[in-house]
Amino acid sequence: MRALDLIGIGAGDPRHLTLQAVEALGRLDLVVLIDKRAETAELTRMREAILDRFASPRLKRLHLDDPPRRREGDYAANVEAWHTARAELLEDALRRHLQDGQRAALLAWGEPTLFDSALRLIKTIEARAGMQLEVEVIPGISSIQTLAARHRIPLNRINEPVHITTGRKLAEGFPPGLDAVLVMLDGDCTFLQVAEPGMEIFWGAYLGTEDEILIEGLVEEVGERIVELRSAARARKGWVMDTYLLRRR
Amino acid sequence: MRALDLIGIGAGDPRHLTLQAVEALGRLDLVVLIDKRAETAELTRMREAILDRFASPRLKRLHLDDPPRRREGDYAANVEAWHTARAELLEDALRRHLQDGQRAALLAWGEPTLFDSALRLIKTIEARAGMQLEVEVIPGISSIQTLAARHRIPLNRINEPVHITTGRKLAEGFPPGLDAVLVMLDGDCTFLQVAEPGMEIFWGAYLGTEDEILIEGLVEEVGERIVELRSAARARKGWVMDTYLLRRR
Ligand SMILES: C[S@@+](CC[C@H](N)C(=O)[O-])C[C@H]1O[C@@H](n2cnc3c(N)ncnc32)[C@H](O)[C@@H]1O
Ligand SMILES: C[S@@+](CC[C@H](N)C(=O)[O-])C[C@H]1O[C@@H](n2cnc3c(N)ncnc32)[C@H](O)[C@@H]1O
Repeated sequence: MRALDLIGIGAGDPRHLTLQAVEALGRLDLVVLIDKRAETAELTRMREAILDRFASPRLKRLHLDDPPRRREGDYAANVEAWHTARAELLEDALRRHLQDGQRAALLAWGEPTLFDSALRLIKTIEARAGMQLEVEVIPGISSIQTLAARHRIPLNRINEPVHITTGRKLAEGFPPGLDAVLVMLDGDCTFLQVAEPGMEIFWGAYLGTEDEILIEGLVEEVGERIVELRSAARARKGWVMDTYLLRRR
Repeated sequence: MRALDLIGIGAGDPRHLTLQAVEALGRLDLVVLIDKRAETAELTRMREAILDRFASPRLKRLHLDDPPRRREGDYAANVEAWHTARAELLEDALRRHLQDGQRAALLAWGEPTLFDSALRLIKTIEARAGMQLEVEVIPGISSIQTLAARHRIPLNRINEPVHITTGRKLAEGFPPGLDAVLVMLDGDCTFLQVAEPGMEIFWGAYLGTEDEILIEGLVEEVGERIVELRSAARARKGWVMDTYLLRRR
């Protein structure tokens, strides 16, 4: 039997690691790091810094290059092909580098079960390979929790649900029946298109890190400034991660 | 200037404390614990155990009785009256027991900004009292994150938003346009009323604790068993906390 942990490491602030995550990092034999394109070298360094501090010295760190993902054509089919390529890569890595009785991990950014494909990857491997894995999921503080904490706002007001969506979905329109949405994975500042007059935004980029930027206000007053700050920061650092709460007052 | 931390302590598993929470607990002068009705003495003990382990010995623990909350009549008005009584109680406690330059905290169950009134309480005190507070919110692992981790399921499937609601709201019907909802604060097993044939549930009670119960399956197959287990556990322990994901397959 091989063990595989999926460890949520928080979304930028290493102090957001849980005691459970720290404990899990300390007992690992292998960590598989799937490195994305060059501009996220900084994210890789953040992961490495966590391992330097909390993993055992005997830990083997295996870097794999994320398979290329097609952007043109059918979105769902492209995601599917990319997913299969990743599963093959990871399965092969586990077969080669993880002995029976050993424990490997994947590190997940933020909360591992929130807009993250690692769990699906693990299920795919279990299904196709007949590889016996003892899987443990270790929760982590997500970017939206950091957003709420840093702005000191509740994720939901009284009698309101919490609704977390993507820029892509928000572009279809502000979800009917709701007065507030949390938005992730928005490369297009979709709030500018969908905000009604009087809607307020609580925005954060690089949350939990030294580069953190926080802006709040009416979209009509702060929207353009967010767009500018975001693209300036992106140009400077080569990447940006931002999330926001958009709501009626 | 007085400092007030709102510390998320996780929803049952003390290993879910973050390093930031541990650090914050260690530097506190005062913790204000608002004790609810007798049946949650166990929850108070869980909080105390965390303080025993991580707080400094000089920490002053102040127990306040939660003001009574009317259940009959207008829901919103009752909540409002209860909220005001709580704010007065907390303000008075801070005035009496927190010196200038000292640091107090409230402990929040799970994630402090998710279905929790403490942040609103703090804002009320700041507004009415002109009491200068330096507030820091420290995120915590919520019960729904523990639910997903223990069932090893994603909070959302591909291209799906995450929607977290209450039993009360779910009773109005399965939210239109969605295929999955996470439900908290449901004393009535509302899934039985709203589930369509073929809907599956991932249910958890006392998540993260020794008494944890996990059930998953089609509502038509496991729904009644959940109701029975829930009421048996509640009778045995005097209280129950449960949450679930309900979705179309
Ligand atoms: C693939 S999703 C993963 C989310 C992650 N599992 C979590 O719990 O936060 C990536 C998105 O999360 C948000 N995000 C992650 N880290 C962030 C950070 N430090 N600051 C702002 N947004 C962040 C951004 O919206 C980004 O597009
Ligand atoms: C007032 S809300 C507070 C939620 C909390 N802030 C969080 O992040 O989980 C209380 C509800 O959370 C859920 N809950 C909290 N702790 C739980 C646990 N250990 N197991 C299952 N459900 C829990 C239940 O639905 C309960 O009715």
